[in-house]
Amino acid sequence: MGEREFLQFLRTRFAPKDPSIRTGAGPDDCALVRVDAATELALTTGTLLEGTHFTADDDPAAIGWKAVAASLSDLAASGCSPRWGLVAVGLRQGKGEEWAEQLARGMKSCADEYGLQIVGGDTTSGRGPVSITVTVIGSPLPRGPLLRGDAQAGDRLVVTGNLGGSSLGKHLHPTPRLREIAALLEIVPVHACIDITDGLALDLSRLMAESGTGAIVMAESIPIAPAAVELGRQSGRAPLDHALHDGEDFELLFTVSPANWERLAARWKEARQETPITVIGEVSGKPGLRLEKRNGEIIVLEPQGYEHDF
Amino acid sequence: MGEREFLQFLRTRFAPKDPSIRTGAGPDDCALVRVDAATELALTTGTLLEGTHFTADDDPAAIGWKAVAASLSDLAASGCSPRWGLVAVGLRQGKGEEWAEQLARGMKSCADEYGLQIVGGDTTSGRGPVSITVTVIGSPLPRGPLLRGDAQAGDRLVVTGNLGGSSLGKHLHPTPRLREIAALLEIVPVHACIDITDGLALDLSRLMAESGTGAIVMAESIPIAPAAVELGRQSGRAPLDHALHDGEDFELLFTVSPANWERLAARWKEARQETPITVIGEVSGKPGLRLEKRNGEIIVLEPQGYEHDF
Repeated sequence: MGEREFLQFLRTRFAPKDPSIRTGAGPDDCALVRVDAATELALTTGTLLEGTHFTADDDPAAIGWKAVAASLSDLAASGCSPRWGLVAVGLRQGKGEEWAEQLARGMKSCADEYGLQIVGGDTTSGRGPVSITVTVIGSPLPRGPLLRGDAQAGDRLVVTGNLGGSSLGKHLHPTPRLREIAALLEIVPVHACIDITDGLALDLSRLMAESGTGAIVMAESIPIAPAAVELGRQSGRAPLDHALHDGEDFELLFTVSPANWERLAARWKEARQETPITVIGEVSGKPGLRLEKRNGEIIVLEPQGYEHDF
Repeated sequence: MGEREFLQFLRTRFAPKDPSIRTGAGPDDCALVRVDAATELALTTGTLLEGTHFTADDDPAAIGWKAVAASLSDLAASGCSPRWGLVAVGLRQGKGEEWAEQLARGMKSCADEYGLQIVGGDTTSGRGPVSITVTVIGSPLPRGPLLRGDAQAGDRLVVTGNLGGSSLGKHLHPTPRLREIAALLEIVPVHACIDITDGLALDLSRLMAESGTGAIVMAESIPIAPAAVELGRQSGRAPLDHALHDGEDFELLFTVSPANWERLAARWKEARQETPITVIGEVSGKPGLRLEKRNGEIIVLEPQGYEHDF
């Protein structure tokens, strides 16, 4: 059973019947819960594991940053702003005080940067790899929350930033796109949104599946990160391949109506927003993913990306 | 640095300045956050680690139950009732589907038993020991929430259930005292409360330290579990020693005024409550813990219990 299958498996066992709770098709989405008539909150949790998401030699401050940033990225994709966080740290016996100090410093700097208040936690220690679980709770932004299932045929597919090659360094210093989603939602409504953590193709396939739609992606429109070019030199694979399939970009992939894209693009430029937003394709009523190559040929885009098995 | 020290260490770095957030002296307490003028929520997270809190051979359904029950026990100690939960599971590659199925079943049965809705989660897999982090969110009961720092000199010290020897079996099947705390708070106000997870002596010392008080405990009043007697036979230690210092009882230790104790005891008996509640001593204005032995001798009670080092 793969990781994704286990999540689905948990979901079928836990799926809340209560209409005051909204979840996506997978329990790794933010869950939206209704506290009272006036208030909905978004909840999400995520774990970083030594050996999977970082190595024993990585800078502990960067690991701490990444642990908090990864959960904040989920909130951004849900169109929510952060309020409170809880950190559960499984330390390795003998890691030492300086390592823990740097880890805590990294967690705190990310929390402070994005207005998250870490209000509690738990610590255990054992002989195994270090694990860090960060739970965050947020409030929907105006025009939020966003769900994965709200894409509509004809929508423009848009990504923030550029993609691929994050294993060369960006994966340890991700930027949760909280400021970007707040700025986007001030300009236009967004239909569906996901953060790209397991690769563009795989996360796009999830967004489309939950919306009951498909997509066509234009290869030449995909913003390829310089790191994807560099990694392509090392791997012998095309930079586009890295941009489509590498994990841990932590960029947003979202859909907006064509008219709203026009407004958004114009206003984004006027405001001189630093983070680029790029149309990479279009939502289609026909399920499945297709890729239009630079030569005009249209091929099936396989939803491959980063998945663990166990 | 011990586990407790790391928690304190995290706390000094994270300590929220915001008056809408109330936390105890340690971040392992429930944090109380104010959602809006009308609503406060309690948040808590806890991790179970293979090799520390359970073994690879333990029944996975029991592990799942325990993981949820341990976090629910924190909510009970805070005078709150459960609403939503998130589970983050770090699986070991190769554990297999049947094991995961049983784990999920155990988590769900505990959640269902106590009205917790599990709304999301995350799964990772690696080569290390299994870890399970459960985050729960609750709402204060009428007369809740309860804080650790609210004990007053003269209060009666009361425990639910009986203590010691949980390693013989109870530690895998804990009962979060959610029904008991709800019934208690219907009868009287409770001043301070903690769940006994690291041993009566150690958790009492924490409760008293946060209240700026001390306590005197009457040895002959402590309700000793049959398992503590059994374990004493195996260990050669006195059953009282196990009742004072063993971890994972998951019973509540709380304080009430003397007059309210009289009311509580009478009403508890009338209602034929199944779980015993027992006065084990008194809160004192003088810091530190003392134990009155059966022979009348008064000795210092060392706050020893279960603590991990790393």
